[in-house]
Amino acid sequence: MHVIADLCLIPLGVGVSVSSYIAECERILTAAGLKIELHAYGTNIEGEWDAIFKAIERCHEKVHAMGAPRISTTLKFGTRTDRAQTMEDKVSSVRKNLCEE
Amino acid sequence: MHVIADLCLIPLGVGVSVSSYIAECERILTAAGLKIELHAYGTNIEGEWDAIFKAIERCHEKVHAMGAPRISTTLKFGTRTDRAQTMEDKVSSVRKNLCEE
Amino acid sequence: MHVIADLCLIPLGVGVSVSSYIAECERILTAAGLKIELHAYGTNIEGEWDAIFKAIERCHEKVHAMGAPRISTTLKFGTRTDRAQTMEDKVSSVRKNLCEE
Amino acid sequence: MHVIADLCLIPLGVGVSVSSYIAECERILTAAGLKIELHAYGTNIEGEWDAIFKAIERCHEKVHAMGAPRISTTLKFGTRTDRAQTMEDKVSSVRKNLCEE
Repeated sequence: MHVIADLCLIPLGVGVSVSSYIAECERILTAAGLKIELHAYGTNIEGEWDAIFKAIERCHEKVHAMGAPRISTTLKFGTRTDRAQTMEDKVSSVRKNLCEE
Repeated sequence: MHVIADLCLIPLGVGVSVSSYIAECERILTAAGLKIELHAYGTNIEGEWDAIFKAIERCHEKVHAMGAPRISTTLKFGTRTDRAQTMEDKVSSVRKNLCEE
Repeated sequence: MHVIADLCLIPLGVGVSVSSYIAECERILTAAGLKIELHAYGTNIEGEWDAIFKAIERCHEKVHAMGAPRISTTLKFGTRTDRAQTMEDKVSSVRKNLCEE
Repeated sequence: MHVIADLCLIPLGVGVSVSSYIAECERILTAAGLKIELHAYGTNIEGEWDAIFKAIERCHEKVHAMGAPRISTTLKFGTRTDRAQTMEDKVSSVRKNLCEE
């Protein structure tokens, strides 16, 4: 199943600066062969179900191994059976609508 | 890895009444041996990583099979390495704090 | 506008134990006259738009005042114009579906 | 209070194609003077608390007026008191970490 997701992982118990943990997750997601796009409140991910969820599990394991005793993640993910859709498609169909009026 | 999660699955393209889809997901989660608790904006789930994510995959497959061409899910999930914690623990530690003053 | 919401507020930079912060938010939401229901991964809230968002703003202010330098909140909220619906309605329509087969 | 948020609004009961609704929300957010950045699973927003939540209320009102009987929104939002931070800061501190090794 093809998935477009948005990952926002928050390590707790490691202070307020969390960017080193997020950077490590980016590396894991990229190494898993997933298409990713970092934004200001998370990371868009595109790929197959198993690859995505296996990579996110590795992110949790790694962030714990880096010293975070607790993690709270918010993940949005969408699947569709009516047609294929990429992350670029989603952005461009909104942009197209923005230009139509 | 032990996980406490909160699942909110939204089928698109099937009108405004989505409770039959959610009920089917509850059955899948329960059949997977997971501890679940339905609330007004989602379902709390407690269990092991693989069991939870495999069951959620089956939810997406089933909701598509029921006729929903598109699904958008918001999932929160937490893991911790400092101590074991159940869903009841989380609620009771807030309740305990509420009673302390 | 009538709203059913689900609030999950995470204070950062205050360690792993966050229940005292959440308990304080419960007090603020209750004092605002909102109907709330605590669960294992957040708090369901029902009320009018302005009352809900004003109360959530007070939660952020209070949690910062309690010492949290950073807060990340995930909020789900729903509105509908087709019919009135309470938190109990949402839960009972899923339960009703669970019993139908 | 300065806020960085991530908005994902889902209209229900209007079929699977929702980009015209999202495009209308982008217009409302921009007209409110907010800094926004569309991505594949939502829209980053930066601005002051009242401006952001007032604009999101207008989004719900507009999407209902366009014909959606039901809306479910997932909103993440963060505030911090330790230092000022923009959306660009958040992205660049992760990028900086990615390059450090």
